Amino acid sequence: MRIARFSIDGNVAFGAVEGEGTGDSAGLVLDIIKGIPFADFELSGTKVPLSKVRLLPPVLPNKVVAFGRNYAEHAAELGHEVPDAPFAFFKPSTSVVGPGDPIAYPSFSSELHHEAELAVVIGRMCREVPRERVKDVILGYTCANDVTARDVQRREKQWARAKGFDSSCPLGPWVETDLDPSDLAIQCTVNGEQRQLGRTSQMIHSIEDLIVNITEAMTLLPGDVILTGTPAGVGPLDVGDVVAVTIQGIGTLTNKVIKRD
Amino acid sequence: MRIARFSIDGNVAFGAVEGEGTGDSAGLVLDIIKGIPFADFELSGTKVPLSKVRLLPPVLPNKVVAFGRNYAEHAAELGHEVPDAPFAFFKPSTSVVGPGDPIAYPSFSSELHHEAELAVVIGRMCREVPRERVKDVILGYTCANDVTARDVQRREKQWARAKGFDSSCPLGPWVETDLDPSDLAIQCTVNGEQRQLGRTSQMIHSIEDLIVNITEAMTLLPGDVILTGTPAGVGPLDVGDVVAVTIQGIGTLTNKVIKRD
Repeated sequence: MRIARFSIDGNVAFGAVEGEGTGDSAGLVLDIIKGIPFADFELSGTKVPLSKVRLLPPVLPNKVVAFGRNYAEHAAELGHEVPDAPFAFFKPSTSVVGPGDPIAYPSFSSELHHEAELAVVIGRMCREVPRERVKDVILGYTCANDVTARDVQRREKQWARAKGFDSSCPLGPWVETDLDPSDLAIQCTVNGEQRQLGRTSQMIHSIEDLIVNITEAMTLLPGDVILTGTPAGVGPLDVGDVVAVTIQGIGTLTNKVIKRD
Repeated sequence: MRIARFSIDGNVAFGAVEGEGTGDSAGLVLDIIKGIPFADFELSGTKVPLSKVRLLPPVLPNKVVAFGRNYAEHAAELGHEVPDAPFAFFKPSTSVVGPGDPIAYPSFSSELHHEAELAVVIGRMCREVPRERVKDVILGYTCANDVTARDVQRREKQWARAKGFDSSCPLGPWVETDLDPSDLAIQCTVNGEQRQLGRTSQMIHSIEDLIVNITEAMTLLPGDVILTGTPAGVGPLDVGDVVAVTIQGIGTLTNKVIKRD
């Protein structure tokens, strides 16, 4: 099931997406969910065309935990060694925007980069998750763009500003709950031109590894998001660019870069 | 005014602390607040002895933004250069505990360190705060312990696990709203023995610098917390230790280290 979060007439709701499409609204319909997707819920049977709503970030994470250098070719393109063990950083809830929302080019950077990533959405509160239980704590998967101020990242030892600025974490278009994430094509285009192309099978540390690693240290809450690293091909974004992350079996997350007001 | 957050009979409330004391409950009384301290509020006149309540973290931050190496002697004791510009990292909301709560020694570290810090509590939503408006966005000040898994910090390039594990961010005992933070004694004791002693006047980058720096990148929300760095004298914590952070004009934040269950 594809679960979207949306607003209509000032109300916010979740809905199950019906019909074919990859992020464009044509032909898609939402069956409004009674309840929330983190507990037992029912489809209401009340349907609304996707074209009539505004899609929101599919979840409102308390925290986004992102893993660095999890694709060998991407580590190499930035001149880095592949780390033996995963390492994680945070993107704050204030960095999250939804499909179609603008990415505001921050004033303190002049080198913004796209990083297409598979995002794992956590479905239940969990800590110290054993490898064989990882599947039980996952609600589903969505697309993410780990937008990065590369110049600031080089200058500042820790990446709170470089990867945590407002609108640096587009998520969407929805959460796909029925998906084997082990070998999916992941692509990033800028103005329709391909920049990144990889497969999730190229991850150095698996989703199981990452969730075992982070929950060894901290509690994850329903709606928290794990970013699993970006494949090779990262590159600059300019004001006016339209950047799209497409993941096989999920859909396309599209955002336009604007000047920060 | 000292504003505490507490639970009594299963209800959570804020209260103004009356009487003399530095974190010990003897003689202190709470005047229960009608409303929340992030908007106009009134004292109810209904009073309850502090000894009858459980103090909670004085705020529930959406995010904690912590700055590294902001005291020169502390940077030196870990063998680091003093950075030209501030650099920030996050501690997640799930790391926050209150006064008297246990610090659970994490299973993935064998070198836990205390770091006493002045915490700034943000009072209103803000972004791109000019230096001269910084005072307007601050609700007040409290004590923090930026508990750190030093061995993990050395191994992992980014510090999400080393400084973001559950219970790694004790805050309290309350928020002091009427305080000049520019030259306060800040002390850390372990089992009553002094470990850290400094003054906030030794900060390399002022509170104004830090808030200008972070809000250039991201929106701060009411209740968000800024940690301003730790003075020299950091050192190990063991299971059973009682660690206390005392800041002049605020009070004492005390926590005991326990084995993680």
